[in-house]
Amino acid sequence: MTETVEAPRLAPWRERMHEVIFEADTPAGKAFDVVLLILIAGSIVAVMLESVPEIAADANWVLALHIAEWTFTGLFAIEYALRMNCVRRPLRYARSFYGIIDLLAILPAFVSLLIPGSQSFAVVRAVRLLRAFRVFKLAHFLTEASSLRRAMVASWPKIAVFLMTVLVLIVIVGSAMYVIEGPESGFTSIPTSVYWAVVTITTVGYGDIAPQTALGKAVASMMMIMGYALIVVPTGVLSAEMAKSSPAKPVSTQACPDCGAEGHDADAKFCRACGGKL
Amino acid sequence: MTETVEAPRLAPWRERMHEVIFEADTPAGKAFDVVLLILIAGSIVAVMLESVPEIAADANWVLALHIAEWTFTGLFAIEYALRMNCVRRPLRYARSFYGIIDLLAILPAFVSLLIPGSQSFAVVRAVRLLRAFRVFKLAHFLTEASSLRRAMVASWPKIAVFLMTVLVLIVIVGSAMYVIEGPESGFTSIPTSVYWAVVTITTVGYGDIAPQTALGKAVASMMMIMGYALIVVPTGVLSAEMAKSSPAKPVSTQACPDCGAEGHDADAKFCRACGGKL
Amino acid sequence: MTETVEAPRLAPWRERMHEVIFEADTPAGKAFDVVLLILIAGSIVAVMLESVPEIAADANWVLALHIAEWTFTGLFAIEYALRMNCVRRPLRYARSFYGIIDLLAILPAFVSLLIPGSQSFAVVRAVRLLRAFRVFKLAHFLTEASSLRRAMVASWPKIAVFLMTVLVLIVIVGSAMYVIEGPESGFTSIPTSVYWAVVTITTVGYGDIAPQTALGKAVASMMMIMGYALIVVPTGVLSAEMAKSSPAKPVSTQACPDCGAEGHDADAKFCRACGGKL
Amino acid sequence: MTETVEAPRLAPWRERMHEVIFEADTPAGKAFDVVLLILIAGSIVAVMLESVPEIAADANWVLALHIAEWTFTGLFAIEYALRMNCVRRPLRYARSFYGIIDLLAILPAFVSLLIPGSQSFAVVRAVRLLRAFRVFKLAHFLTEASSLRRAMVASWPKIAVFLMTVLVLIVIVGSAMYVIEGPESGFTSIPTSVYWAVVTITTVGYGDIAPQTALGKAVASMMMIMGYALIVVPTGVLSAEMAKSSPAKPVSTQACPDCGAEGHDADAKFCRACGGKL
Repeated sequence: MTETVEAPRLAPWRERMHEVIFEADTPAGKAFDVVLLILIAGSIVAVMLESVPEIAADANWVLALHIAEWTFTGLFAIEYALRMNCVRRPLRYARSFYGIIDLLAILPAFVSLLIPGSQSFAVVRAVRLLRAFRVFKLAHFLTEASSLRRAMVASWPKIAVFLMTVLVLIVIVGSAMYVIEGPESGFTSIPTSVYWAVVTITTVGYGDIAPQTALGKAVASMMMIMGYALIVVPTGVLSAEMAKSSPAKPVSTQACPDCGAEGHDADAKFCRACGGKL
Repeated sequence: MTETVEAPRLAPWRERMHEVIFEADTPAGKAFDVVLLILIAGSIVAVMLESVPEIAADANWVLALHIAEWTFTGLFAIEYALRMNCVRRPLRYARSFYGIIDLLAILPAFVSLLIPGSQSFAVVRAVRLLRAFRVFKLAHFLTEASSLRRAMVASWPKIAVFLMTVLVLIVIVGSAMYVIEGPESGFTSIPTSVYWAVVTITTVGYGDIAPQTALGKAVASMMMIMGYALIVVPTGVLSAEMAKSSPAKPVSTQACPDCGAEGHDADAKFCRACGGKL
Repeated sequence: MTETVEAPRLAPWRERMHEVIFEADTPAGKAFDVVLLILIAGSIVAVMLESVPEIAADANWVLALHIAEWTFTGLFAIEYALRMNCVRRPLRYARSFYGIIDLLAILPAFVSLLIPGSQSFAVVRAVRLLRAFRVFKLAHFLTEASSLRRAMVASWPKIAVFLMTVLVLIVIVGSAMYVIEGPESGFTSIPTSVYWAVVTITTVGYGDIAPQTALGKAVASMMMIMGYALIVVPTGVLSAEMAKSSPAKPVSTQACPDCGAEGHDADAKFCRACGGKL
Repeated sequence: MTETVEAPRLAPWRERMHEVIFEADTPAGKAFDVVLLILIAGSIVAVMLESVPEIAADANWVLALHIAEWTFTGLFAIEYALRMNCVRRPLRYARSFYGIIDLLAILPAFVSLLIPGSQSFAVVRAVRLLRAFRVFKLAHFLTEASSLRRAMVASWPKIAVFLMTVLVLIVIVGSAMYVIEGPESGFTSIPTSVYWAVVTITTVGYGDIAPQTALGKAVASMMMIMGYALIVVPTGVLSAEMAKSSPAKPVSTQACPDCGAEGHDADAKFCRACGGKL
């Protein structure tokens, strides 16, 4: 809305801050990302511990976790402010995938003041761990990911055909088992039977619902062998696709100074998301 | 029986109707298919809900679902009549795979008037969802499916050898476990033990039947490792087959105006199923 | 022991019988094999039914199955005698894999006269179903099987390394879980814990034994992810091997008239097992 | 610390002992390794049996296993001393992977004198079974292993991306299920829910914790299908990598006489770990 056609150049100190916060090419940038990842992992562990009944019953633990939670929230809030400050077009960043995730990392602590119990949603911070790809091997990882993504895009139609067929099979067999087994064996409704069919065809097999009649066991056996054999289809498809795929184009680790988008080609001069100069 | 050697040409308005109903190349044809898919999905959800005890006990829900069921049946009946009307050889369509499925989509509501409880069979409508392949990506999907089908046909003998071996293994180990474990551990008969062997070798593992003796556990362990390792065989076979398979021949999205058969080659002039002109 | 260096030529009618019984190239040979397969499948079903308590309690069923069992045994005994009669070197056939299996198919009925309950072992007849490969697609199937066998032989060292590593992992983690969880959680001894580790790493997951402590659950989680990820190793190995393997050498459907060995090359003149003329 | 720049040449009889103990090229060396493997397997079985309650309650068994344990420990101690004696730089061997494992194979018996119950740790001897690779097929196995290792190293970044994504998914879905299902269904805390998510996505499916609510079952179903479909990613990646990988470089079976490191190239003149002459 307030974006101009030509984004303003940033002051040199904000350019440097951008390099530290958004990139991982320099030692300072790498150190920033590593510290951030540790903070994210720590905040997730804190949220997890908070949910354990033994710990929630212990006043000392509760206090410690409360302090930790607000410390993490404070640090993430500062980080968010810095990120907003050192991109040329803050609104573009704010509306990008990582911009929204970064905001969601701060909100739960504040929301939990209003709605008790909502702090569990803080685990959405786990999504931020995906930033780790930038720290560890950088360009290498990004290239791999995009070569993987390309093979998956190429084999997507075949895998969609496979998933569609599996879904139709699940609905048909699930309904058939409802008719065959009936409520006495735990198949209390068609949705429940379909849930059972999913549990069975994916070979998870909880055992909370299991066929009791001879016919039900025979149908279930056929379904299991089908589920066991079917998985080879997408595997074969993706294997062939990966084998075909040419060596991936090198990808730069630079993040766009305008909107923070990543994954630009090594020789790209402009952001492919917003057209800003890199 | 009443089919003539040369199918009569359809009147122009029926040709147009054929284009809308059987194909998805035109905006109208695509819109028709999308609406149809939504109706199919809706009718499946209605049948599923009907089977949930809480909903079956609520008079309002029962009435609403009853109305929905007859509405869907009515719409599908109209669709079936239109389809019969705009193919040149209705009998050929009626006896084709989709013709039978389209008829089965209408019958359960009527049958349930005579035999209460049989409305569960209405989920056979799920098979009609496979029509989705035509809507979403069309030619692309059809090509993929047929390239997939070709690789599966080519690797079928190898996979048959694999399945045959697995079945013999299941019968032998299932029987051995009946002798080893006996009825006390839940292995009450050889068919039950064979069912257990299927549950185990496919790695589903419900746990409703599990070996109790040391020898039984040892045999079961060996069987699990075998089942875990065996799945690599068909996977490797299909992967190799897919990698070998040349780029698929393009496939047209046209359905035969005579019998409704699909999947014709892009340059085909006549239906490969009935020989009618496309 | 009584074998001569040069096997005697068979009389013409025994040559023809050999063609019918051991091969499936002629209509008579194919018919013989199909009838035999139906008999084998029938005899397995009879043995299975005999073990079902409801059927064992019904005098009519017991009588019918008793008659069926002795009929099948009689037919298989006649078949065995014919086979012995129409090979040039009966002892070689008697000591071959299928010769032993064919004998084992007859014995259980007689043994069960002496030792009641031993008729369950008659399911060993299931192994004879592997003869089906000869009937269904013949040369085609045999070639596939041997091309599969060649790829498996080629990738065997890699898969042995994989299985060895998995076994060591199972023993180490199984023992660790015995120390961590102890008898209260069902980990009553190291062998039991190792059995649990096999159930877990193969993703069967019965649930009869499951970790209860936090540390146990953490170790089990790591093991599950490892088991889930490890299966890709042999799959990748075999896929690569299959892709590399050249088109298989054609294989003849002829069985050696001396010893009954199968799988000879199409241009083979002598049996690769006993050196007899084909 | 006491290592010299130029390792002293060993006396001829120690050279020969090195050949027998560390290598498997000569009949004596192979015999030594086979005997050692049998001893290792035997000692593992003894430790396992010791933990079975029925055996631990029987004084005869306890005595026999006690004697066996100390016999194995004595033999392994002698073997360790011989190994230290016939390498040129004992400290290098003592600090190598196998050196540490060989020491750990002796310690548990002594430690169990001080801390009762610690003899379970003796199963760490299982790691020594990996020496089997040297005995069975030697150069062949080592080459395979290192070609396998090379493909895994090459596909590691792609597999790391996959594992990272799976972990983030597990944390997110695990936490969501804690909020959806709550403690009544067994989802007593976020760590427990995350454990359930691991059990489910790896398709192990114990069934000790399973969703009870309709929403929970729907989320779990989606997760199962995802877990079932996700495994194709690393499989495809490794298959493609293995297919690409060139025939492996031949590897020698020689162990370094200085430090005992293995896996040297066939034409290597110096140890790649310590630089000692081979």
